Amino acid sequence: MNDAQRLPSYTLVVSCPDRVGIVAAVSRFVADRGGSLTESNHHTDVAQGWFFMRNVISAKSLSVSLKEFRDEFAPLAEELGMSWNLRDNNQLQRVVILASHASHCLADILHRWKSSDLACQIPCVISNHENLRSMVEWHGIPFHHVPVPKEDKSEAFRQVSEIIERHRAETIVLARYMQIIPPQLCSEYAGRLINIHHSFLPSFIGANPYLRAYERGVKLIGATCHYVTEDLDEGPIIEQDVIRVNHSCDKDDMVRLGRDVEQSVLSRGLRYHLEDRVIVRGNRTVVFTS
Amino acid sequence: MNDAQRLPSYTLVVSCPDRVGIVAAVSRFVADRGGSLTESNHHTDVAQGWFFMRNVISAKSLSVSLKEFRDEFAPLAEELGMSWNLRDNNQLQRVVILASHASHCLADILHRWKSSDLACQIPCVISNHENLRSMVEWHGIPFHHVPVPKEDKSEAFRQVSEIIERHRAETIVLARYMQIIPPQLCSEYAGRLINIHHSFLPSFIGANPYLRAYERGVKLIGATCHYVTEDLDEGPIIEQDVIRVNHSCDKDDMVRLGRDVEQSVLSRGLRYHLEDRVIVRGNRTVVFTS
Amino acid sequence: MNDAQRLPSYTLVVSCPDRVGIVAAVSRFVADRGGSLTESNHHTDVAQGWFFMRNVISAKSLSVSLKEFRDEFAPLAEELGMSWNLRDNNQLQRVVILASHASHCLADILHRWKSSDLACQIPCVISNHENLRSMVEWHGIPFHHVPVPKEDKSEAFRQVSEIIERHRAETIVLARYMQIIPPQLCSEYAGRLINIHHSFLPSFIGANPYLRAYERGVKLIGATCHYVTEDLDEGPIIEQDVIRVNHSCDKDDMVRLGRDVEQSVLSRGLRYHLEDRVIVRGNRTVVFTS
Amino acid sequence: MNDAQRLPSYTLVVSCPDRVGIVAAVSRFVADRGGSLTESNHHTDVAQGWFFMRNVISAKSLSVSLKEFRDEFAPLAEELGMSWNLRDNNQLQRVVILASHASHCLADILHRWKSSDLACQIPCVISNHENLRSMVEWHGIPFHHVPVPKEDKSEAFRQVSEIIERHRAETIVLARYMQIIPPQLCSEYAGRLINIHHSFLPSFIGANPYLRAYERGVKLIGATCHYVTEDLDEGPIIEQDVIRVNHSCDKDDMVRLGRDVEQSVLSRGLRYHLEDRVIVRGNRTVVFTS
Repeated sequence: MNDAQRLPSYTLVVSCPDRVGIVAAVSRFVADRGGSLTESNHHTDVAQGWFFMRNVISAKSLSVSLKEFRDEFAPLAEELGMSWNLRDNNQLQRVVILASHASHCLADILHRWKSSDLACQIPCVISNHENLRSMVEWHGIPFHHVPVPKEDKSEAFRQVSEIIERHRAETIVLARYMQIIPPQLCSEYAGRLINIHHSFLPSFIGANPYLRAYERGVKLIGATCHYVTEDLDEGPIIEQDVIRVNHSCDKDDMVRLGRDVEQSVLSRGLRYHLEDRVIVRGNRTVVFTS
Repeated sequence: MNDAQRLPSYTLVVSCPDRVGIVAAVSRFVADRGGSLTESNHHTDVAQGWFFMRNVISAKSLSVSLKEFRDEFAPLAEELGMSWNLRDNNQLQRVVILASHASHCLADILHRWKSSDLACQIPCVISNHENLRSMVEWHGIPFHHVPVPKEDKSEAFRQVSEIIERHRAETIVLARYMQIIPPQLCSEYAGRLINIHHSFLPSFIGANPYLRAYERGVKLIGATCHYVTEDLDEGPIIEQDVIRVNHSCDKDDMVRLGRDVEQSVLSRGLRYHLEDRVIVRGNRTVVFTS
Repeated sequence: MNDAQRLPSYTLVVSCPDRVGIVAAVSRFVADRGGSLTESNHHTDVAQGWFFMRNVISAKSLSVSLKEFRDEFAPLAEELGMSWNLRDNNQLQRVVILASHASHCLADILHRWKSSDLACQIPCVISNHENLRSMVEWHGIPFHHVPVPKEDKSEAFRQVSEIIERHRAETIVLARYMQIIPPQLCSEYAGRLINIHHSFLPSFIGANPYLRAYERGVKLIGATCHYVTEDLDEGPIIEQDVIRVNHSCDKDDMVRLGRDVEQSVLSRGLRYHLEDRVIVRGNRTVVFTS
Repeated sequence: MNDAQRLPSYTLVVSCPDRVGIVAAVSRFVADRGGSLTESNHHTDVAQGWFFMRNVISAKSLSVSLKEFRDEFAPLAEELGMSWNLRDNNQLQRVVILASHASHCLADILHRWKSSDLACQIPCVISNHENLRSMVEWHGIPFHHVPVPKEDKSEAFRQVSEIIERHRAETIVLARYMQIIPPQLCSEYAGRLINIHHSFLPSFIGANPYLRAYERGVKLIGATCHYVTEDLDEGPIIEQDVIRVNHSCDKDDMVRLGRDVEQSVLSRGLRYHLEDRVIVRGNRTVVFTS
């Protein structure tokens, strides 16, 4: 699954109205330039008449440069009405992480990053608390403390946005940030802003999901990784998972057990996003996991 | 876990306000009568100050009859403010099943019953359709067809209730019955009326959960076995489970995959209920699964 | 996932040495004949240099007949060194099931077949016991009783083979048949003979896996659906799954819990096989599950 | 589940030959001293005639000191032939961790420890490599580098043992230590030495389990947390889990996916051990998970 990331490679992702011959056209285009496919996934949404494709192409097999590939592919893409993206997998994405007081999701991402399990750059971490500074800085990553006062959050988010821009973040991760993002930033970072919600959405949208799960007496609790939109906890879902609980679990136990699900769901969702496995259409996602 | 069902045994289930000495008193009571415990589970809900216990007692180890046990236990139970129940596990519960058009949950229960995997009697099956008659009758079980006309359902439910009473059902199972049970029957059969809902509650309460799951783009779908109360899909949850889906699943695929979860969740929930593993308190359940 | 099965469609499965341009050549071939792809999966085994593809093609979109498609595709397949197969999904496969005394796997398959959940024909069931005759015949399927005497099994397997041949079975399913298949039949039916083993292989190869799982004290038990080869329980694995057990489970509980895993793993594995989602290479399988 | 750890409490664990009246005697003993049970689990192994019990007793409810409880309980325990242990949960266990080059299990344990998710002391970490020193020391924990030369490991293990003794470790964790522990240490630390093996035992005992899983073509890979005995990977199993893989996973992918299972299985197993939820009998364990 990851060979593509290990050797120089490009990932081509396209989506467009479905019609006969798209696969033929795209794969012919790649083959004509010597391109060897190490991964290839297609999906046709028959009901919606929409086509999705992800190809990982061995870089050294190609007879053209990335720029030439792009220039030559553009007319074909236009002809087929494609949304498309071609990424050089050697250019690691820049990911800015926002955290609050809780450490588990952030610690998990930082460890995966440090041990080269998650291929990205992390130019900085932003938090509204100071308590995680030492952990972040031990990893050699700058830490920005931006308090978010309850009475007026606009200046704080102006600062947050400025830091994100300054670090040229391509992806922003809310690692249990616990703050509602202003609508303007949601739309500005549409498809690039990833949240982990501590419930199996659409159950327990909003605050205190574990308490409400406890009170409802559910037998499984979960977590949801999704793109953030202006509608709280309503954005396109990337990944979800659950864990079993029972009557002996009080609310604190659920919080503790839930942490493990949160961090694994977030790290999987983030990986899918970074490897260009996720394509959003409407409020649903295509996720080519293998 | 099932030894109790294999050898003659009694199951004693109690719940009461928590205080020091309950376990001592109950287990002393049993030991004084020679009772050998083959299973014993306790739970203390510390927050609510409530105690729950389930004991399976080897029948042949006891020096007293079931009636004597009951008569002698009653004063202790009263002293401790207990709700309690003592069942002779050789007396199989009478379970009436209500089904509609879909066969999978009913077929699963009938097969488990026929192969002695589920210890109960099934005096009859009631359906608002005729299509499952042959399957039921092949199992040697009477089949009652009670159509439920849209315009006026009261006469139908009068008949359903009459059949349930006539067969002296202790437990009633809605095996994808797809009809809303009148409030009066819900309260009459409180704690004895079990439903399988085809979603992971509280997600997608009500109609068409698979369609709504599809539209929301969830990555897991589920099913919930619960006691029926007057509030639709809001009763105490006995068991839940989920299965993974992805973008390649359309709504019909979800229906198909969901069937497997529905039948396994219902059969597990029914088993727990029949083995007196479930204790309801408020809208939550204690389920002693092992 | 199943739209393909619902509308007239063909499934084209190919595997061959990997090289640049295979996808282009095959998809161009299909597109040139108007073929609309409703499902398409590729896999490149980079280490082995081998390519695998499965396409589901809408039948009515094609401008050529199935025979013409085959005739015209053959030269391309030969040029690329392909193993390939093209199936008309309207021609349901003929599946003969062998069972012994236990009913659960057989009952599950028969119910799925009867409720049109599993698309195949079942021309007959063969068993070395009589006890499942009534269940099979209620489904309208001929039942053949072929006892397998311990002292000499060769005549029994001659009969079994004759029945399989007479019914022109394409796929043979061992639904907990509990008999070792003679090597000659294993090789004759290579890639068409499917077994369910009641352990998570390679753990507990051979007899009494649940007893050995109990004795080893494992915390999960499982089941494995695999193609049968001459080496007992060593054939290519199609599907596996597990279920949690604990110290309160004795060996009989494991047998009971295991039955659910066995039947779900077998039915999933059989579905993948019938939908041509499984490609065997060496002792490993590619399974395009979505 | 964890209330016991939050308030001062004692955990009493007993096992003994089964007979009538054990629960009564023990719970009477506790109740007579005012002891309030916040958790209580029993298990009777009917086949072996053996009884297991774990009680968590609120410390402040008791009218006697820990020493008095022990002194007074001893005669009862002797009468019933009990193995027993009473722990003051405020006295955190001393856990020494041995690691090699891989960081994931160690990082996970250290993070849980630092965020008070895992209640223990970690007096030091021992490794045969230097690469994890900085991570360990950042947590404020001493790091001992003890190289283990291939030609003669006895001196290294003498040092390891000396460090373990010096730090008065009650529990020793092999967090992917990758060295075979000498038989003498295995027996010296019997029931206190915990390993994580990177396969679903008994599959793939010994070296290179992921490679062998890949070659066998299994559809799930797993990990096993077990007590170490002299027989490699054959000790009593505490916890296991699995994760799904498919044909697109090469051996490196399995290693990567397996890491997540390894660390979650190890941390769960270690938690069960530290909370005295695990009782070993023969080569099997009773694990009171709730």
